[in-house]
Amino acid sequence: MAELSERSGVPVATIKYYLRERMLPVGEYTSPNQAVYDERHVDRLKLVRALLEVGGLSVSAVVAVLAAVDDEEMPLTWAFGVAQHALPNPIDPTAPRRARLHELAPGEVVDIDPLHPELAAVFAARGWAVSADNPGIAMAARVLDTYESLGLSHLKSTLAPYAEAAERVAEADLGAVGLRDDRAERVESVVVGTVLGDALFAGLRRIAQEHISQQVFPDSASVQR
Amino acid sequence: MAELSERSGVPVATIKYYLRERMLPVGEYTSPNQAVYDERHVDRLKLVRALLEVGGLSVSAVVAVLAAVDDEEMPLTWAFGVAQHALPNPIDPTAPRRARLHELAPGEVVDIDPLHPELAAVFAARGWAVSADNPGIAMAARVLDTYESLGLSHLKSTLAPYAEAAERVAEADLGAVGLRDDRAERVESVVVGTVLGDALFAGLRRIAQEHISQQVFPDSASVQR
Repeated sequence: MAELSERSGVPVATIKYYLRERMLPVGEYTSPNQAVYDERHVDRLKLVRALLEVGGLSVSAVVAVLAAVDDEEMPLTWAFGVAQHALPNPIDPTAPRRARLHELAPGEVVDIDPLHPELAAVFAARGWAVSADNPGIAMAARVLDTYESLGLSHLKSTLAPYAEAAERVAEADLGAVGLRDDRAERVESVVVGTVLGDALFAGLRRIAQEHISQQVFPDSASVQR
Repeated sequence: MAELSERSGVPVATIKYYLRERMLPVGEYTSPNQAVYDERHVDRLKLVRALLEVGGLSVSAVVAVLAAVDDEEMPLTWAFGVAQHALPNPIDPTAPRRARLHELAPGEVVDIDPLHPELAAVFAARGWAVSADNPGIAMAARVLDTYESLGLSHLKSTLAPYAEAAERVAEADLGAVGLRDDRAERVESVVVGTVLGDALFAGLRRIAQEHISQQVFPDSASVQR
């Protein structure tokens, strides 16, 4: 374990914690006090650390996500679902949402009618068809409702270009997954790309906002914060 | 205050808390126990609630953001910076980052050289020029480094299409802000659109991922979670 700690850069106490929480499989025991860890343990350690510290997942979410990586029977599209549901939802789940979304059964394919009207228009325009429990539906609907309640309905003008950009991003996500042939590597790509891709896109959006705002509102002078 | 609570749907105890934390200005006193609140208070109450509950901002971040809304001298591009810095950063700020980014002075315009090499290529390709303390730079660099350390460098293939999509999203953000003429409404649009736009885009990405994954990997059967 000391060697595993050295090779991965993860402290022994942290490794023991990961083992206790079943986020890391135990090595093969060669004596009661000695277990052998191999390259797969080093890789798994790095993955656990990235999901917890960079992705901000909870321990239980990491366990769920690792189960998907290890389940050789799980279809790739399901892995997306596991990754999406494991992600910390920036929208407070206890806050009231549109009741109609809750009334749909899990796994039921969304009919356009019960959707938020602006979202329904986007689904129709883009030909999107997804399951009713896709967590993105409630997230997007909640934001649109908030724009409306704040008297900032003009912000809804971003919905159509956002949806087109989201489709380009999803195509890039799937394209990257397709670059690997091995099933386990594909699922790992789905999980890591879904979890960390939000942060990558949000970072790029902040950079692009500053760049574009200087062009659109050049009278605002140089940016000094 | 009872009437303000009724009209806004926010409990009196919560209103008192907002007043105490200076997120809501006190009304005009007509007697020692009676203050008059008007439409602006109702609007401000809704905004505070949306930033705290839907946007997930801290109280101190809300105070900073409201100061930007109320400061009539603040240039619009600065308001983007205030909103961006107020946002909860999904990347753990205590985690080690590329030292070279920290060495740059706040406000200093980023030279392409000290940037993460993949990000530098994107900056060059898109002609982006932003201040060194744009929080998106460290966010994006951290994700790219994590892809690399996990042996998932093929996920970096998403960077260029993400950057193009981020620019489209930023153009939509700025376009929406330009739909309003009033300065206070513009700043409010910047703040709310920046804070909630991340959640709107993340939601749409989850929907698009499911839609596209069914097309790319149709053998994965129907999506049932």
